[in-house]
Order: sequence, then C-alpha cells, then structure tokens
Amino acid sequence: MPQLSEKGIRMPASPIRKLTPFADQAKKEGKKIYHLNIGQPDIETPEIMLNALKNIDFKVWAYTPSEGTASYRNKLMQYYNKLGYDITVNDILVTNGGSEAITIAMQACLNPGEEIIIPEPFYANYNGFACSADIVVKPIMSYIDSGFSLPPIGEFEKLITDKTKAIAICNPNNPTGYLYAREELEQLKELCLKHDLYLFSDEAYREFCYDGREFVSPMHLAGLEEHVVVLDTVSKRYSACGARIGCLITKNKELYQAALKFAQARLSPSLEGQIASEAAVDTPDSYFLAVTEEYTARRDTLVNGLNQIEGVFCPNPGGAFYVVAKLPIDNADAFCQWMLESFSYENETVMMAPATGFYSTPGAGVNEVRLAYVLNRDDLKRALRCLEEALSVYPGRTQA
Amino acid sequence: MPQLSEKGIRMPASPIRKLTPFADQAKKEGKKIYHLNIGQPDIETPEIMLNALKNIDFKVWAYTPSEGTASYRNKLMQYYNKLGYDITVNDILVTNGGSEAITIAMQACLNPGEEIIIPEPFYANYNGFACSADIVVKPIMSYIDSGFSLPPIGEFEKLITDKTKAIAICNPNNPTGYLYAREELEQLKELCLKHDLYLFSDEAYREFCYDGREFVSPMHLAGLEEHVVVLDTVSKRYSACGARIGCLITKNKELYQAALKFAQARLSPSLEGQIASEAAVDTPDSYFLAVTEEYTARRDTLVNGLNQIEGVFCPNPGGAFYVVAKLPIDNADAFCQWMLESFSYENETVMMAPATGFYSTPGAGVNEVRLAYVLNRDDLKRALRCLEEALSVYPGRTQA
Ligand SMILES: Cc1ncc(COP(=O)(O)O)c(C=O)c1O
Ligand SMILES: Cc1ncc(COP(=O)(O)O)c(C=O)c1O
Repeated sequence: MPQLSEKGIRMPASPIRKLTPFADQAKKEGKKIYHLNIGQPDIETPEIMLNALKNIDFKVWAYTPSEGTASYRNKLMQYYNKLGYDITVNDILVTNGGSEAITIAMQACLNPGEEIIIPEPFYANYNGFACSADIVVKPIMSYIDSGFSLPPIGEFEKLITDKTKAIAICNPNNPTGYLYAREELEQLKELCLKHDLYLFSDEAYREFCYDGREFVSPMHLAGLEEHVVVLDTVSKRYSACGARIGCLITKNKELYQAALKFAQARLSPSLEGQIASEAAVDTPDSYFLAVTEEYTARRDTLVNGLNQIEGVFCPNPGGAFYVVAKLPIDNADAFCQWMLESFSYENETVMMAPATGFYSTPGAGVNEVRLAYVLNRDDLKRALRCLEEALSVYPGRTQA
Repeated sequence: MPQLSEKGIRMPASPIRKLTPFADQAKKEGKKIYHLNIGQPDIETPEIMLNALKNIDFKVWAYTPSEGTASYRNKLMQYYNKLGYDITVNDILVTNGGSEAITIAMQACLNPGEEIIIPEPFYANYNGFACSADIVVKPIMSYIDSGFSLPPIGEFEKLITDKTKAIAICNPNNPTGYLYAREELEQLKELCLKHDLYLFSDEAYREFCYDGREFVSPMHLAGLEEHVVVLDTVSKRYSACGARIGCLITKNKELYQAALKFAQARLSPSLEGQIASEAAVDTPDSYFLAVTEEYTARRDTLVNGLNQIEGVFCPNPGGAFYVVAKLPIDNADAFCQWMLESFSYENETVMMAPATGFYSTPGAGVNEVRLAYVLNRDDLKRALRCLEEALSVYPGRTQA
C-alpha cells in the first residue's frame, strides 16, 4: 500500500469534530443538546438572496471567469466602496468561500517554511491552511484578562525573524469576539511597514459589531496598500455558509496577478452562488439592524449569564458571535466531553468547543471554552442553567 | 513591498488564456470567432437538475458536512454501483469541483518534491495543482500517430525513481479524446502494484464514450483497491460546470481519512450544488443518448473535416469532446494568434488552443492544436472552412 504524504499525516483534523462521536451518543440516549460549539448561525438568509437563487434562468450552468463574474465584482466593489475601501473591481478576486481566499493568500505570499504571526487563540482552520501551504504559524498570545486585545507590538517584534512574511488578524475575532480598535490597527500598520510584511485581514464577521462600535479595516489605513490582503466571505454576513462564496481583495497588483493564477487552475467559483451573492448586496439595512439587535441581546444574555456563574469569567466582546470564557475546571477538553458523556440536567446538556483547539501554544487555554451564540435567548438561558449545574457537580472542578 | 512566494511567481498562468487579448481585439474589430478553444459545452443542463436548484426550500443556507451530505453521497453511491464500482458512501468525498479533488489527492499522497507520472499531452491545470502542492509532474510522451494511446509500460519503468509516488490518467482524455482500453488499464495496474504507486483516474468525461466503446475505470480492476483514487465532477457529465461539485473516491481508508482532513479545513462543498447534483443522478438515459449522439456527429464532422484538409492529421478519438490535430505549420502558438490577429474569412475566424500548453516537454506538440467540439455541426463546418482557408494562406505553412 502506497504511503500517505507527511502532509496528509500531519494535517490537523478539525478540533471541533473531536467531540462529535460523544454528541452522537448523547443524542442516541435521548439527551437534548444545546449546540454552542459551532459557527453555523440559525439566522435566516435574506430573502432577496434566496429568491435570486430560486429565480436563476440560465439553461447552461456554465463556468464563470476565474476571478468571478464582472457583474458580481462590480456590485461587490460598490459594497466595499460604501465601507470606505478605496478599491476597484480589479482588486477583487471571487473565491470558493473565505477558506479558499485564505489558502490562496498563504500560497501566493509565503514560501514553504516561512512564518505568519497570528494572535492566539485563533480560528483553528488556519492551522489546516498553513499545513496545506507548508508554512509555519507563529502564535502570539492574547489574554482573556485584557479581553483578548492586541498583544503589545514589542511582543510581535520579538517573534519577527527573517522568515516572517505576514501577520494575520481576524476582525472581529473568531473565537474571542474581540473587535480591534483603530489604534491597534495603526500599530500593526507601522509594524508591517517597518518589517515589510503582508497584513492579512480576515473580515468574515465584519457586519457583526455591537454597541455602536466602529469597524476598522487595514483597508482604511493609507500607506499600507501594497501590504493588505482582505479575506472575506458571504457565509456569516448573509447567513449563507453553504453558498461557498468569498473573496480576496488586494491593491497589490503583483499579488493579485499571482492569486489569479491559483484561481485559474481551479477554473471558477460557482455561478449560482455569485448570482445570489450579487443580489444579497442589496439586502436592506433593516435586515442587518434586526440581526445586530438579536446578536447583541444574545451576547448580553450569554456574557451576563456566564459571569454570574461562580468561578466563571467571560469578557464582553465587541463583535462576531463568539465568546471565550474561563471556567473553574482543570481541563476543558475533558469537561466538554464529560458534559456530553456523563452529565445531563433535566435531560439536556450543552456542547461547547474546548479553547485548546484555538491555541497552538501547548497548554494554553486549557480551562477555557468557546461558545457561539447562534441560538435564541431562551435556549441560551437554558444552556446557561445546564452549564451552571454541570460546574457545580463536575469532579474536575477547581477552586477559583 | 513584500515579496511574493516563489510558488506565486512560478505558478503557471492558464495557457488557454494567453490568446484572450487577441480574441478580445478581434471581437472589437467585428470578427465572428468560432470558439473551439475551451471545454465549456453548449449542451443544456438537464432540467431535473436546474429544477432542483430553482426549488430549493431551505431558509438558512447552511454548511453541509465537509464530506458532503449523506443523501447526496448515498445517491452518488448508487450511481457508481450501477457503473460497477464496488464502493460505499464512506468511500466518497464531495469536493468543490474535480479541481479540488485533484488538489486534495495530490496533497494527501505526495510529499513536496515527489513525482507523479502523467502521459502527455495532459490537462494543463495539472501543472497548476502540482505547483500548488509542490510536487513534480513527470510527463511521459504519447504520440498522435498512435492516436495518443498509452505509452509502452517499459517507458513508464524508465521514469520511475524512488521519488515516484503516483501515476495519473485522464480517461477519456482531455485534450486527446483517447479512451483507454481495458488492457492498458490492466498494464497500469500491474505497474502500480509492482512499484507501489497510487493510480489517479480523472474521469471527468466518463459519460462521453462513442461508437459503443466500453469505458473501463481502475475501479473495475480487482486487487488495486488501496491504490486507486477516482477524481470526478458533475461539470461535464451534466453540463454543470458552474455548480462546482466534484468528488474524490477511494477505498483506501487511510487516504480517505487524510483527504477528509483537507476537506474539513475548507468546511463544506456548496449546499445547493449538492442538492442539484443529487437530483441530476436521476437524469433520464434519453438525455445521455441524445448528448452522445450529438457529440458523435460533431466529432465525425470535425475529424473528417480536418483530415480532408491538405496536410492536416487528426486521429479519431473514442471519448470526451476534444481532438488534437497536427497542422502543416511551423508553430501553433504563432498560428493560433495569427488566426485571431491577422486572418479572417468572410469576417470570421477560429480560436483554437495551441497544444504546447498541454505538453510539458519543451518543443513537443509545436505543430498541434486542441479543438473542443462544443459547437453545433453547422458552426463546426464553417470553422473548418475558415481553418482550411487560413492554412492555405498562412505564411508559416510547412510542406508536409
Ligand atoms: C474567522 C473565519 N474565517 C474564515 C472562515 C471561512 O468561512 P467560509 O469558507 O465559509 O467563507 C470562517 C468560518 O467559520 C471563520 O470563522
Ligand atoms: C480533465 C479534467 N479534469 C478536471 C477538470 C476540472 O473540472 P471541474 O473543476 O469543473 O470539476 C477538467 C475541466 O475542464 C478537466 O478537463
């Protein structure tokens, strides 16, 4: 039997899925599970987007240009211009979800063995994309006690070597929900200019900013045009994860041309996904207002509820729909598994993502979990009640 | 400005697109162009498939499992079982088109620097996927005079080193249309067993076999289960290139698990693409009969027409919808460009793909072109007339 590649062996399995067998078993036993473990929103996709899908009228389901259709890119440009990104259609490359945009950016910018610095905890699949591109993620610790704000620039400087090629941020952040302030981005800008680094900005959750806080993109900072690569997706914006439409945006022409070659090899993003995503740009503001209101209320319910449980600490993040909370336990992997395997309260339990999957420093986040507030408030409250009960009886509870 | 990666620089641009600016210019000048250069069929997508797309009724456009939905994989299994592939749902991984299936297979099986042997001419994007996976394509020459049949196994043996990890075939072939005979596959089987190699079988054109010829897959050969990776797509089968749905099939469990990890990192294939592709499995036989009849007639028109032009030679291939023809010219790249730039006949011209883009041996195929018979017969006849005229006045014509 031929051998797998080392990459095939080394490739990380999705950490979120480790608990799936235990969840399946719990379900078999008739337990109701509150799924706070994944980022699949329950919010409905805008009608305007679904209607565009239902109303397609092509007879031949054809390839589109590799960079995306002219009309979708044009519409996207208007969307970004409204946000204050000074870009043209020629700066936009449509991709198979944000996932592909990230992969292409890594491959086009970093040589095998080169390094990308990413504040941790970070979106776990960055590890997979990095493995696939044979590049090295250098994590830089951000701390729950400061709400996961940007680590001091001095700490970045310490990590920079002649192999460092890029810094990546996710803003607002998955898993922490942290929304970077303008001054933090300004600091990153100076750093990227000084060391000649790319700045990848994963903005999958751009629309989800709360309490009237300002969203700032590196695209808003003058002088960084050749360095910035925005990675975007319609997945969360329009609750359209299954459409697999994202994009890569850069004003760096040389990089754009390189990225385009990767896009040409895989031919085309989906035609109907682009048609629907184009229609989605006209989603009325009222949709986003309602969604933001709902998420704000959910976040408040979840964060307040968590902080009321003895020994639990959860910062109040400014965006996305995740929080990372510290629990009074020895080991979140064991605890999350135990919640599925050995615990129930009124025949219900909660599934959470152990935060260790989002850290790459061994041992980091061992008593933290990520919770996605993708359920309605009543369910969140019941989930909180469950969690409180669980913590009160968990054998691995620590004194805190 | 930060530097691109070497891969970003080295990544091949799609050779087919080199001529695009000249085609655009020709169009501007009002010339009508017969596009025989690309594999975008004009055939209509089955109604049953488009209707499934129009009738989607989900409210949340959600991710599907990374390996594809259970119901689509189940339906696909039935499709493959009918073809005589002894596989289960657990052997099928749904991908973003065949393109992604090929990329994942290469990454999971070959280490950077390892080699895959592919008969040339071959589908040009294999070069892009190989570049992206940092692996090396070792071409093995197949010849127009034998209709591009499988090179003798002795020639393969000469190429095999300790870095050789896989052999890839495309059957029926793009760009040659060649349909491999059972005995050729048996020979490959022995070779792969002897040298412990993976056998990648790109079957994008499986449905397009003519003259009652038998399609044989390595999946039909007993004893090769751990070696075979089938790479498939709905793009050509249902003329649904824009759906971006393909799959990777392997009975090698270890490989399947590795491939699944790559699939998990990118989350999910498109939901609606899978819904439509699932419906497409019930496309009536009459659809394929009509399509095969149409393609057979087109192939006959094209191949006969080409061979009637003085100095032109074109084998009569058994499948797909491409032919590679030898022309009495010095350089096909120059000739194809000249056809767009400097030639017209009754204000019409023909766009073809120079075959050099499908060879990786320098200088090979320099007087060959690939023609896709994706136009109706009348258009093919006019295109042939154009080509004949062009060859009669082309300054770079050779005596043959
Ligand atoms: C931070 C972040 N980036 C990128 C993605 C990829 O999303 P997609 O490939 O669906 O666009 C996700 C999905 O959860 C995400 O959370
Ligand atoms: C031989 C071959 N393999 C794979 C593909 C990829 O097709 P897709 O990614 O659309 O499934 C093509 C497309 O033309 C092809 O010709």
